[in-house]
Amino acid sequence: MSRPSPLQGGITIAVDAMSGDHGPSVCVPGALEVLREQPALRIALVGMPAALDAALASLDGGLRARIEIVPATQVVAMDERPRDAIRRKKDSSLRRAIDLVAAGRAAACVSSGNTGALMSTAHFVLGMIEGIERPAIVSKIPASGGHTCMLDLGANISASPAQLVQFALTGSVVAAELLGRPRPRVGLLNIGSEDIKGHEIVKAAHLLLQQGSLGYVGYVEGSDLFTGVVDVVATDGFTGNVVLKTCEGIAEGMFGLVRRELDATPLARLGAAIVAPALRNVAHQIDYTEVGGALLAGVARPVVIAHGRSDAAAIASAIRSAATFVACDLAGRIAVALVEPA
Amino acid sequence: MSRPSPLQGGITIAVDAMSGDHGPSVCVPGALEVLREQPALRIALVGMPAALDAALASLDGGLRARIEIVPATQVVAMDERPRDAIRRKKDSSLRRAIDLVAAGRAAACVSSGNTGALMSTAHFVLGMIEGIERPAIVSKIPASGGHTCMLDLGANISASPAQLVQFALTGSVVAAELLGRPRPRVGLLNIGSEDIKGHEIVKAAHLLLQQGSLGYVGYVEGSDLFTGVVDVVATDGFTGNVVLKTCEGIAEGMFGLVRRELDATPLARLGAAIVAPALRNVAHQIDYTEVGGALLAGVARPVVIAHGRSDAAAIASAIRSAATFVACDLAGRIAVALVEPA
Repeated sequence: MSRPSPLQGGITIAVDAMSGDHGPSVCVPGALEVLREQPALRIALVGMPAALDAALASLDGGLRARIEIVPATQVVAMDERPRDAIRRKKDSSLRRAIDLVAAGRAAACVSSGNTGALMSTAHFVLGMIEGIERPAIVSKIPASGGHTCMLDLGANISASPAQLVQFALTGSVVAAELLGRPRPRVGLLNIGSEDIKGHEIVKAAHLLLQQGSLGYVGYVEGSDLFTGVVDVVATDGFTGNVVLKTCEGIAEGMFGLVRRELDATPLARLGAAIVAPALRNVAHQIDYTEVGGALLAGVARPVVIAHGRSDAAAIASAIRSAATFVACDLAGRIAVALVEPA
Repeated sequence: MSRPSPLQGGITIAVDAMSGDHGPSVCVPGALEVLREQPALRIALVGMPAALDAALASLDGGLRARIEIVPATQVVAMDERPRDAIRRKKDSSLRRAIDLVAAGRAAACVSSGNTGALMSTAHFVLGMIEGIERPAIVSKIPASGGHTCMLDLGANISASPAQLVQFALTGSVVAAELLGRPRPRVGLLNIGSEDIKGHEIVKAAHLLLQQGSLGYVGYVEGSDLFTGVVDVVATDGFTGNVVLKTCEGIAEGMFGLVRRELDATPLARLGAAIVAPALRNVAHQIDYTEVGGALLAGVARPVVIAHGRSDAAAIASAIRSAATFVACDLAGRIAVALVEPA
């Protein structure tokens, strides 16, 4: 008798358990957290069996039965070139996790590993949704009164007008699901709101989007990312990545400034003790580890990218996102949206 | 006897007194503030004489003698196309202020008007420093332990590798003056720090900068803007403008979140009252109106762009910057840096 397929009894998510800065020490607890919440979920933990067996040793039988350990003898390094990872690391945890999805043994994959390698491998192994040329990284960013979905956050170094339109469409489907908005408002990132602003690529995409059927509201600027005026912001991967890292940098920088000021005098320290919970609430709202990882949108099956620095909570959050995208048939919905009348 | 030239007795700065959201009501007090500080400074206030005469009516003779009112009958609207401003607004306060610089009657110009019109007019009337192809907007942004000079913040929608190198060089000369660093550390904004990252333009600029004589430290990412690892960040005007507006947006958004949390409970409100001075210090450190406006670098004479929303303090700060750039012969120093052995 062979072991039952992980697909029986619900959705299986493949987790690259060797990935990120902390590997199994955060991937296993993160997986267990979501398994406890979602009784129908199964997880395939991909990695070195010795390490994973040890991490699961004390587990009770009920949870253990919903976990499959899938062996992989290699690990893709964080600085490895994507091409080298594809060629030389065919037994890596990253590759094996994606292979499980390609084979139908898992419905989606989560990794906090080398983003470039994950992207290239997913593109190569899983292929793209028909009508989408390039994968794009999409994530929620905190905005006034909720979140804004932004893409591409760095899967590509540039984008054609047609690709920007594909990003807008993909982002719209993702935002409908993640933000619960039936008709998301979509903006195109530019350096001004007037029609004459911007370079030729952004202008051409603007014209295409104006003719399309999305809830396109026009150009938005960097200052609009956080005001909640749109649900989706589409841009090329160079600009999107710089913006994402700028947000992370300024948030850290501002908290550093606040900390320094609040520690400057005894009275400020007293006040700081009182307002600490309020400031922690703010930090929590803008914490990128809480937003469920980033989705590699456009590939044929959901692939969720967690931050390399992820802790167990961030891995759990990424697994929840992956399960959500599977449950709503994200890839199918993007494919349908692509062929809807413009 | 004609009135003495404003150039006698020190530096004259031309101020477009009709510009920005508040015109003479902030430009005149801003000018007076700097005139009181700097006894050798003269200011040419350019605009409608009736409005300016009224604003200066109660002034004592000593200050009044260092102010010349230069009449202009037109005002460039904030949404006017630069080309239209150049063609149809030859008697605008913006144009007349730049004409004063071209005629040698003022050494530099300050305006909080239409940035595109100011840029195009300055480029057209004053010309470029030899060896610099395009103007670039450069400003200080708050960073850990000081400031970082960033350019181009939106004078152009793209940049060639050679232009990125020119921005790096210009930024280096500006940072040496503004930050008091004899050999500024220069970074090129990219989406990763490894040599293989980025698009062809940024890679080509990287190679050129590695061969040059600047204090070039290599690629930096969005998160490095605020850490103080470099003194100058060079990028194209599209990316730079999006980053600048993202910074403004996230700073406002975070303060909004902090305000809301600090107002949520009576205890939080008590704490907020205690920490208010500390938070105001932080707000002050990241306040863009305090950084002295932005310089339109590369044109043959200093042109300082103040924010359209400038108050009198921001106009004063921009005038101080203009005077500093004149005193250090910025244009001459950039020209010298261009011909130094690579």
